[in-house]
Amino acid sequence: MTTPNCSIEASLALVGEPWNLLILREVFRGFHRFSDFHHNLGLAKNLLSTRLKKLCDHDILKQIPSKPGSRRFEYHLTTKGYDLYPVLLALMQWGDKWLFTKDQLPLLILDPDGNTIAPLKPYSLSGQQLEFSALKPFPGPGANTFIRKK
Amino acid sequence: MTTPNCSIEASLALVGEPWNLLILREVFRGFHRFSDFHHNLGLAKNLLSTRLKKLCDHDILKQIPSKPGSRRFEYHLTTKGYDLYPVLLALMQWGDKWLFTKDQLPLLILDPDGNTIAPLKPYSLSGQQLEFSALKPFPGPGANTFIRKK
Repeated sequence: MTTPNCSIEASLALVGEPWNLLILREVFRGFHRFSDFHHNLGLAKNLLSTRLKKLCDHDILKQIPSKPGSRRFEYHLTTKGYDLYPVLLALMQWGDKWLFTKDQLPLLILDPDGNTIAPLKPYSLSGQQLEFSALKPFPGPGANTFIRKK
Repeated sequence: MTTPNCSIEASLALVGEPWNLLILREVFRGFHRFSDFHHNLGLAKNLLSTRLKKLCDHDILKQIPSKPGSRRFEYHLTTKGYDLYPVLLALMQWGDKWLFTKDQLPLLILDPDGNTIAPLKPYSLSGQQLEFSALKPFPGPGANTFIRKK
């Protein structure tokens, strides 16, 4: 794969395909077996295999034996995979706000005190909360002409 | 469309298709015309039309005349569309961290002081920063049996 000159596009090339994000959702909510994914997602086994292989090839999921020495294995998140939590949380919060009413919410994500969490907001490195509208995009050191144009 | 019993899945059904998110990326970075999207994304006009129509039908983008009274129009984000900023930012930050080195970064998102912003983190409603690992999922009021199972 040629890496596109955009982190959003490069990320989408790996995980933007809806099935990949839904497989990751399953792992985040505690399912780890091929049979779980097949059952919960209703995705054909050959397509599921292809997607799991891609996620493992890109070090987003890893295979771990179900028990020491077992030939059966489970799929777990790597650090790189776990780092997709904000992507799934952002998608979930958007869907919660715009596609469901409060009494329809399928899932709640609660803090350790059992309260709902705040909508994701950007923060400065010094911990100050910012508005999205206050953020400004600038070409980075690797920007090509295409990006610099605007 | 039957709404799935999951905000992630429902969101992906609308915007998870990579081209939709790349069209939205273009609008976020200041492009608004059909010809801009066609030129920048290299997407066939018929496919681009279909996707723009879907994004407008779902009130994520809206058409605005280029000038008052003009028959040419531009595509702009609605509030619902603008609320996808965290999704794009989360994808970008993940790509920045895992798919590029620092000197390859295509785009920087800076705060009003010109500094890079922090990675997205969850916060409690009272403003306390949390770790993703501290969050707990619970079935919501609209959870179906499938979700409640785990």
